[in-house]
Amino acid sequence: MDQVDFLNGQTRLYGIVGDPIEQVRSPEMITWEMRQRGLNAVLVPVHVRAQDFDEVMPQLLRVHNLDGLVFTIPFKAKAMAYAERLGPQATQVGALNALVRRDGHWCGEIFDGLGCVEGFRRRGLALRGQRIMLMGLGGAGAAIAAAVAAERPALLRMFDPDAARSQRLADVVRRISPTTLVELAPASIEGIDVLMNASPVGMLDDARLPLAVTSLPESLVVFDAIVKPEQTPLLALAQECGCTVVRGREMMRGQIAKLVDYFAAPPDDFVAGSSTTAMADKIRPSA
Amino acid sequence: MDQVDFLNGQTRLYGIVGDPIEQVRSPEMITWEMRQRGLNAVLVPVHVRAQDFDEVMPQLLRVHNLDGLVFTIPFKAKAMAYAERLGPQATQVGALNALVRRDGHWCGEIFDGLGCVEGFRRRGLALRGQRIMLMGLGGAGAAIAAAVAAERPALLRMFDPDAARSQRLADVVRRISPTTLVELAPASIEGIDVLMNASPVGMLDDARLPLAVTSLPESLVVFDAIVKPEQTPLLALAQECGCTVVRGREMMRGQIAKLVDYFAAPPDDFVAGSSTTAMADKIRPSA
Repeated sequence: MDQVDFLNGQTRLYGIVGDPIEQVRSPEMITWEMRQRGLNAVLVPVHVRAQDFDEVMPQLLRVHNLDGLVFTIPFKAKAMAYAERLGPQATQVGALNALVRRDGHWCGEIFDGLGCVEGFRRRGLALRGQRIMLMGLGGAGAAIAAAVAAERPALLRMFDPDAARSQRLADVVRRISPTTLVELAPASIEGIDVLMNASPVGMLDDARLPLAVTSLPESLVVFDAIVKPEQTPLLALAQECGCTVVRGREMMRGQIAKLVDYFAAPPDDFVAGSSTTAMADKIRPSA
Repeated sequence: MDQVDFLNGQTRLYGIVGDPIEQVRSPEMITWEMRQRGLNAVLVPVHVRAQDFDEVMPQLLRVHNLDGLVFTIPFKAKAMAYAERLGPQATQVGALNALVRRDGHWCGEIFDGLGCVEGFRRRGLALRGQRIMLMGLGGAGAAIAAAVAAERPALLRMFDPDAARSQRLADVVRRISPTTLVELAPASIEGIDVLMNASPVGMLDDARLPLAVTSLPESLVVFDAIVKPEQTPLLALAQECGCTVVRGREMMRGQIAKLVDYFAAPPDDFVAGSSTTAMADKIRPSA
């Protein structure tokens, strides 16, 4: 009988929850990655309106063949309330972008930073012992700081216009990697091996550079978290100067790989999460 | 970038809700039919546990890119509570197996009977003016009675061991088609053009016939709603006797086609449903 080969009654469900939802790329990319690994699973777009989120979420989590959710704008912060346990990155950063069901419990983790590190790993670029400048400590930047810290660089210099946020991230990095020298200072490339941009400067039609330079040393590795455009002003300059370039798309690929690792086999290193026992009882299907 | 071609952020969601869910065939079959028509849509299995249904359903219906749900065991009766409006078949039968969102309202309809009539239509077999014997007036049988009545047969003779149910269906048929002669009588083929089985007799390993016959006239059209096995004892006898045979699978294909017609373009003939105004307010996304 006429039928598709990518869905049946045994298919496990994953979703990306956002408002709006039309622009997300996870459904086609994460589903592809899951199928590559032989999983009978799909990740579908789930459009929950912002005003409905707190009522819809607890019930959505009770759908019995739903095994994981990714969160996008505007739910990344709010989703924290639904994690019964948190992975090590989410614990440090205080935010998550994915929930995965493990042993009947919803476990939260954040993959932006892990994806960035995975992108470097896939290019054979180690971060251990390196001297790193990170610009921008918003959602993605904070996650990158925590993931990079776990690689134990020699130096992590960070800049964000928000001083309180910068101070908080410095503490996070020191906690994760006591041997790393942490500096809060304006963006610069003096004594730096790896330059990372996680600020929005250079996004879409923004022709600016995220730091005041006219050239870059050839030995510098330059990373930009921005996905659109693929070639940001910073990466264009880096390429002109002969630098090694790591693109936002490589971080995205890395993030998808790490996410699907978690979806396929959530590790054991989750710790107690932020949600109350009452919430945990509510979202767990009754026995 | 590596990606699948059957899912993206614009994909509209449909689901089949049941407990258990692993055995359903709608995901692969209905998704195939929707893709054949050029719709960017998938129908996924949604496993809602029976004890969670009344809490999960209202919130599931608020997922903004969810456009339709099919219901299977054990939710066919309970789903009636979530229809704000009912289609003509569901109104008559008092049951539904699908909800579709139209103009922000959830409209319920039942497609078993419509699928049977569509199966006949696709074979070029008209039911108008025919003399029909229908055996079995359970869920599928009741829907078949209502859909067949709408075709205005000359005679509809029906049998079910449940006398009250039989009487109720006789009233339904008379209401739908005042010109049809309605008889409640034991299964027989005297004066009958079309013999329809909607009873479970002959299912799986059941070797019985649903009526006491040893042969059938060649002119008889014989239909069996049973899908497993494809060749029931009744259809085997009918084929031996040279009768025209219509199979359960043809009804299933017809049902999928009618369902996707509704999903793609729900008609205007819905009437006020069984759900209260309070429920309607609850499941409608806030403005």
